[in-house]
Amino acid sequence: MIERLAIVGIGLLGGSVAKAARAASLAREIVGIARDPRRVEAALRDGALDRVTDDVGSGVRDAELVVLAAPVLANERLLERVWAAATDGALITDVGSTKAGLARAAGRLHATRRLGFVGSHPMAGSEQSGYGAARADLFRGALVIVTPTETTEPRVVKAVSELWERVGARVATLDPDTHDRVVAIVSHLPHLAAVALVDAVRRFEPGATAFAGRGFKDTTRIAAGDAAVWEEILFANRDALLASCDAFRAALDDLEHLMRAGDAAALRDRLVQVKQTREAMR
Amino acid sequence: MIERLAIVGIGLLGGSVAKAARAASLAREIVGIARDPRRVEAALRDGALDRVTDDVGSGVRDAELVVLAAPVLANERLLERVWAAATDGALITDVGSTKAGLARAAGRLHATRRLGFVGSHPMAGSEQSGYGAARADLFRGALVIVTPTETTEPRVVKAVSELWERVGARVATLDPDTHDRVVAIVSHLPHLAAVALVDAVRRFEPGATAFAGRGFKDTTRIAAGDAAVWEEILFANRDALLASCDAFRAALDDLEHLMRAGDAAALRDRLVQVKQTREAMR
Repeated sequence: MIERLAIVGIGLLGGSVAKAARAASLAREIVGIARDPRRVEAALRDGALDRVTDDVGSGVRDAELVVLAAPVLANERLLERVWAAATDGALITDVGSTKAGLARAAGRLHATRRLGFVGSHPMAGSEQSGYGAARADLFRGALVIVTPTETTEPRVVKAVSELWERVGARVATLDPDTHDRVVAIVSHLPHLAAVALVDAVRRFEPGATAFAGRGFKDTTRIAAGDAAVWEEILFANRDALLASCDAFRAALDDLEHLMRAGDAAALRDRLVQVKQTREAMR
Repeated sequence: MIERLAIVGIGLLGGSVAKAARAASLAREIVGIARDPRRVEAALRDGALDRVTDDVGSGVRDAELVVLAAPVLANERLLERVWAAATDGALITDVGSTKAGLARAAGRLHATRRLGFVGSHPMAGSEQSGYGAARADLFRGALVIVTPTETTEPRVVKAVSELWERVGARVATLDPDTHDRVVAIVSHLPHLAAVALVDAVRRFEPGATAFAGRGFKDTTRIAAGDAAVWEEILFANRDALLASCDAFRAALDDLEHLMRAGDAAALRDRLVQVKQTREAMR
């Protein structure tokens, strides 16, 4: 059992880390760091947090584990303050959905002081946000991608992976750059495509929304995600996302070309190939 | 009650029309026309059909209602034979997912002989196909778009609409061209985008499929649809689909431009607008 766990940012993910850690008796004391402590009073009342502060320095002091759970770009800014205030031997991880930026920042800080950092990306979430949506079982059965670099010590990867497993998650590892390409193509690009599909209805035939069936609704469900959260994510992973968008346009170009050329056989081959790929994902 | 109902094509939709008509006692005799009658013996055994033939002429003879339920482009070819063999006063409709082509063909035939034709598009289906997937309740609660032209007699629209209502469907009407634009943007374009997303994974980062979560799976679920069916549909609605694809690309261009320009405020506005549009569709 950890003596003190500090969580920076008490929204959906940070709040769920607190609740899950409490439920699994992972830490004796759980400290929340929030910009506006009044907004997370519910976490004190329900026992997920023991203490809340808006001061990063005092919040992370003497914590054996610090979890960064602010929005992605904010985590990059917060890491420097956490690094300076953390106790010797502390482990630091985060729950952001892009990893290369924070890994680079940690690499720079590691040259100044050796602390144990490795990124984490729990692939769990919902269209909701905020502490009100936090759940103790959010990570149960979920996949968490842990993202060591060449310089990350194996003991750090092991310790952080075990913590995720103790709250019910499965753990996989990827280097941060590969991780960002992976989430660009399986998460951020589908989001962008869903947003563009909804926007295209307005441009092309606005009245068509009344006729949207299950196919359209499934395909665009993620476009109802929190705009502020997604704006952050899209910008944080901009380079990988724009590169994945080029691959998407090339795939779309090919399909349009086959339709214009009237090449039914080749179009069907492509549809069969994609159907098989998609079915293998069930 | 109709004396004789003839259904051309006994797959998912044609088979469901037979089962639903039988369950609602819509017709005394239900005749199936199938290219290979041996493949629909199950429909005779379970009582959905009274008789099966591979001959369109004898199959539609004396039928008061003929439902074309072959693939879309096949329906256009079959309509001429149905028109020649149908009895005076017969009503003809179809269940295809694009409507302008068949409406044009019916318009030409109407000049040679006045029969009552109006297109129907039941917005019900599944990823499955074939008679084995047919269900008596497939149309219950589903929307059926009936597509009269300027020359369609109101009594024909009324009669066909009432038949759909008797098997539990809600009916809306659109002219065939507007219908095809609507389904292009809410059904065929999302399909094309889903196919391109799955294909983009293979091009960009093949190993990423192992990390596809609920968002990716929802967004691309329709890409597992039957390839032969979709190849037909995409070609049958090619012009409207390619036009809707231009609108989609314009929407995607805008999003990429906002990201490249680093215009977070404008990107967030767009995400908020799309979220509101999408939420209004629930």
